[in-house]
This record gives sequence, structure tokens and C-alpha cells, in this order.
Amino acid sequence: MKTFDVDLGARSYPIFIGGQLLSQRQLLAPYITGQQVVVVSNETVAPLYLERIQSTLSEYDVNTVILPDGEQYKTLAYLNNIFDALLEARCTRDVTLIALGGGVVGDMTGFAAASYQRGVNFIQIPTTLLAQVDSSVGGKTGVNHPLGKNMIGAFHQPQSVLIDTSVLATLDDRQLSAGIAEVIKYGLICDEPFFGWLEKNMARLLARDEEALIYAIERSCRNKAEIVAQDEKESGVRALLNLGHTFGHAIEAGMGYGTWLHGEAVAAGICIAAELSRRQGWIDNEVVGRIIALTKAANLPTQPPAELSLARFNELMSVDKKVKGGKLRLILLKGIGEAFISADFDPALMNASIKACRESQ
Amino acid sequence: MKTFDVDLGARSYPIFIGGQLLSQRQLLAPYITGQQVVVVSNETVAPLYLERIQSTLSEYDVNTVILPDGEQYKTLAYLNNIFDALLEARCTRDVTLIALGGGVVGDMTGFAAASYQRGVNFIQIPTTLLAQVDSSVGGKTGVNHPLGKNMIGAFHQPQSVLIDTSVLATLDDRQLSAGIAEVIKYGLICDEPFFGWLEKNMARLLARDEEALIYAIERSCRNKAEIVAQDEKESGVRALLNLGHTFGHAIEAGMGYGTWLHGEAVAAGICIAAELSRRQGWIDNEVVGRIIALTKAANLPTQPPAELSLARFNELMSVDKKVKGGKLRLILLKGIGEAFISADFDPALMNASIKACRESQ
Repeated sequence: MKTFDVDLGARSYPIFIGGQLLSQRQLLAPYITGQQVVVVSNETVAPLYLERIQSTLSEYDVNTVILPDGEQYKTLAYLNNIFDALLEARCTRDVTLIALGGGVVGDMTGFAAASYQRGVNFIQIPTTLLAQVDSSVGGKTGVNHPLGKNMIGAFHQPQSVLIDTSVLATLDDRQLSAGIAEVIKYGLICDEPFFGWLEKNMARLLARDEEALIYAIERSCRNKAEIVAQDEKESGVRALLNLGHTFGHAIEAGMGYGTWLHGEAVAAGICIAAELSRRQGWIDNEVVGRIIALTKAANLPTQPPAELSLARFNELMSVDKKVKGGKLRLILLKGIGEAFISADFDPALMNASIKACRESQ
Repeated sequence: MKTFDVDLGARSYPIFIGGQLLSQRQLLAPYITGQQVVVVSNETVAPLYLERIQSTLSEYDVNTVILPDGEQYKTLAYLNNIFDALLEARCTRDVTLIALGGGVVGDMTGFAAASYQRGVNFIQIPTTLLAQVDSSVGGKTGVNHPLGKNMIGAFHQPQSVLIDTSVLATLDDRQLSAGIAEVIKYGLICDEPFFGWLEKNMARLLARDEEALIYAIERSCRNKAEIVAQDEKESGVRALLNLGHTFGHAIEAGMGYGTWLHGEAVAAGICIAAELSRRQGWIDNEVVGRIIALTKAANLPTQPPAELSLARFNELMSVDKKVKGGKLRLILLKGIGEAFISADFDPALMNASIKACRESQ
């Protein structure tokens, strides 16, 4: 098992990565405050792993909330189901929430924990690759609004993150690839050697080679932990983690949440960001080619959906959380491993890049 | 005009108290971040004061949200109206929200500001006495749940609090008295001389004598600011501000939000806390008599509603935010100006006190 900390002073917490961790009581107990525990999961994950967690936590008063599975249910209305359950079970401020599921379950459980009685503790047990390498670490929580992704939420750090790689055995192929999109992202923003490793080892990841998966998860989480430690609330460097996300969020909201998986939308968004960086003269054809090739090798889309008009793209991006003083800021590339934030791009080139990506190949 | 700061390090902010402040642009402009402003108000206050604020802020892009008036609308569903308005107006992270109304508007606007894009700025312009002396200061924000008051929320401090005492001219008598309940509370928890002043000046407050009102508001806010500065997130002394509130919240939720005003429920709750403190032997008959006399002089209820059973009281109090390790903690009195938190009371005496208050007089 690998262990390391997200270093946030008084809010620091450990990440545990390894096989068969769900049954290890001693990894959970130190992070549970009182006697009351509420496990939040979804209809896909609960039948597979809920009983195992319940038996690991047999000494606590455990209640459960089962949400429907999918990004389209990441709403304020479904969040209320968690509050209903907490109050029906008479949970007090020393309750501990546990998120057992993918990014949607983690984001909603975290926001419920941030808001219930103005803040209670929670633990992340991510069960998708995407949640394991990205969304379970760093304390971003929230729900979507029809007009924008993750528009309602809070920064609220978990007590610990338990990454059991054995659960990836039951993940479907499309979800696995979606997670790899965020793995590729780390290589691109700050870790060129890791990008090279991914180019050599993509087949092993897709074949769910355990050693390769653990390596990719640990390296992704370490990259993320380092960035979050520098800038918890995204006033600077943390924005780099949004490479591909401004375009990706527009795709998710524009197509209807749940139509494209988050990782799929981010993959296409990364390709647009690469194309725009090339047109700005910051990277060359060869770099763009490597990015597209690796994205394709992961069975991820490299093109935004044909249905989404340029006007709709621009409208959806106008509320992006990185807009400042009326100006959109994007994460762009000066090379592999060299992302930067910029409001200093040509909007015409941005629109041309979206169009070019949509029409290419 | 009186001005002083709530001292919270990087989150410190000023409180301005005086007549005709709504028209003073220079008191608002320094606390508005960008160009976008959203004023949240309600159907009672908006017709009276919204136009004045809009003209004061004519240089900004101002949008408005008008909520229905009353505690029964302080819900997650109505909160969503604010998010809808923010997104329809394409508000970005540098938007400033302004709460123009009583405690409900302030709590909801503050929670919307805490959650929109994971946190934006807001300004409090409280228009009821209760909001001016209590809820607008200190950063507690949130909404109710049918099973518990203020169960969903966040700590989120405003950029400034603008208290225009002229608006109290249009407040109805019942609301004025409800505000006085929280004023009496400050005397009881930490300011015996102020309690004495209130005994002498209650008639002036009820007659809306401007000098008396400004004095009572400033003294209340200074007391609150001092306590909040010591303990922003209520890990200790701040809990004292909840004198009468555990009983009061049970009355509000049990009777249906909006039936009893918050201040009315707190007034009856304070009388129960005083009776329990007397039965525990911590205060004598004379002190209880002074508390009941002052509460009556303010035209406030001293008895909980006959309809609320002891069992329902206990059920509603079981999720109180001060419950710790399964034990209810209450704010009780060792004298006027000497409140303390205690789990060390006899539950049988508590129930007897609720009964006695209900049946007395």
C-alpha cells in the first residue's frame, strides 16, 4: 500500500492507495469522528461494494443514501436526499459522511458534508478511475446547474481518501477511458516524463494491469496533491488542473449532463486547447500530434460534438469560473508538461480551433 | 454615523450604523468587487427600498431577485431561485450579492454567496431590527429543513454590513418586538449594564425613539462582533449567542416555519432557559422575574405554545447543532450577563421547566 499526505496545514489528510483496502477497518476508524456514519453511494456501486463497507464499519451506527447513477442527477434536488437522510437519522455535528462511488457521489457527498449543520467530516472512497486520480483529492465539492457545471459548491477537504484499486475490476471500459483523460492531463500540465510513460504503457492501463494502474494513480494523486497544497482555493496555480475543462464543461452542459462522460468531454477539451496553443504559435504540430495520438490510444474522443454550435459554446463558457473582469481565461500549453493560464489568446483563433477540431480527422 | 470592525483577520469587515445610509454610494462602492451586482430582497421590502438601492448603484450592472416574505420560504428550493438569477445574468466569480431584507433574506443571500462558484462576495443591508442586531453580523448563513432550523448552510462573512436605522420606520410592531428579543439576549449573556438600560428604556425602543434604537443596535452589534471575533466557527464561546435558541428553533420548526417569528420563539426559549437555570439552583426567583418582566414589556411571549408536546420538543431538539456525543448542550444562566454552556443539567428538570413555562401565568 502507498500512503502520502495532502499538505494543507491543519486540514492535511492522507491518501491510501492499494488493493483490497475496503475491508481494512484500521484505515477508516481513525478518520471517523463519532458513532454515526452515513454512506452515500449510487445504484451501480452499492450492489457491488456497500455490504463490504457496512461489514467493515459494523461497530458504528451506519445509515445509507443511494443516489441514481449519472451526472444528470448531480443537482440541488438530489443533494436534498442526503440532507433528508441525515435529518431522518437524527445525525448531529459529529456524524461522518462516506462517499462510496465516482466523481458525482464524491462531489455531492462533499458538498453535503460542507453544508450540513455548516460543516461535518467526510471520507472519500472513490470507485472510478476518474474519482481516484482526480475528483476525490483536493476538496472541490458541488453540484451542477442546467446553465453551468459545478456552479454551486464549496471547498471542503475530506478527512482521508481511501483508493482501493481492486474495485476497478468492475468498472466498465468507457468509464476506465474517461478516467485516463485526467491521467493524461497531469502529464500535460506539469509532468512530461509521465506523459512519456503513458505513451509507452497505455495498453497496460487499458488491460487493467494492476501495477500500471497503481503507478498511474499514485503519480496522478501526487501531482494533484502538490498543486493543491500550493493553492487550496484556486487563486493561482491550481487553475492549471482545469486544462481542457472550460471546453469540457461546455460540452457536458450543452449536450445534457450524462450524455458525454466528464472525462470524455475533458479529452476533447484538451485537444481543442492543444489546437489553440498551436495556432497561437506556442506549440508545434508534432506536440499536437502526440496529444491526439495518446488521446486516441486511450479510446477517448478528440473532437467536440458536431451538434454544439460555436455560439452555444461561447455562451456556456461565458460563466466559466475562470472568467475575470469579463475576460475568459484558458489553460493553454507551451509544451508537454508546461501548461499556463492565459487571457491573452485571440478569441477568433479559439473559435477557429473549436471548428477545426470538430471538422478534423 | 457609527463605524466599527468585526475583527477576523483577513476576513475583517466594517459595520456602518446610522440614518439614511441606503443612499450613500461611498459606503457601498468600496465593497463591490466587479461590475455585476445582484440585489436579493423580498416582496415586502423591495417595494419600499429596492429603487433607492438601484439608484445608489446606478453605475453597476444590477440584477434583482425578489423572494416571497417569510421563514417558510427559507428553503433549498427557494435558494435555487437565486442561483437561477445569477446564472441567467451570466454572473462570474467577481459578482457581488447584496442582501436587502430581514434575517431570511440575509441568511439565504449569504449561503448563495458562499456556494455560487464556490464562493463570491456579499454585502448585508439588514432591514429588520432582528437582522440589524444579530443575523447580519457574524457570517452564519443557511436555510431550514422541515426537520430542523438552519440545518443546511455555511460560515461565510460579508464584505460589510450597512445598517440604515431609517428603514425601521416601516417595520411592523410585531417584527420590532421580535428584534428586541435578540437585544435582550445580549444583556443576558454578557452585558448586565445593558440589561439594566433596557429595563429603563423599553418604552423608548417600542416608540422607535431614534437615539435609543441606534444605541441598542450599536451595543448589540459590538457585543456580537466581540464574541464572533473570539470564535468565528463556534467551537466555544460563540455558542452563548444561542441562549434561548435550542428551545426557540424547536418552536419554529414544530409550529411550522413562519407561524412564530424567530425572535418570538427565542423570547419564549429564553424564559424556559431562565426557569431551568432557576430549578438547577443557579439563579433565584428575582432574576427570573426580571427576565419575564422585560420580555413582557417588549410585548414578547414568555410561554411556549400549548400545541407543542414535550415529546415533540425533545425530538426536534435531538438534532440541535450543539448536541455532542449524543448529549444535548444548552445555554443557561448563572446570573444576568453570565451565560454558560452546559450538558450538565437534569433532563427531568428541563422537561419540567418547559411544562411550567407553558402552564404559568
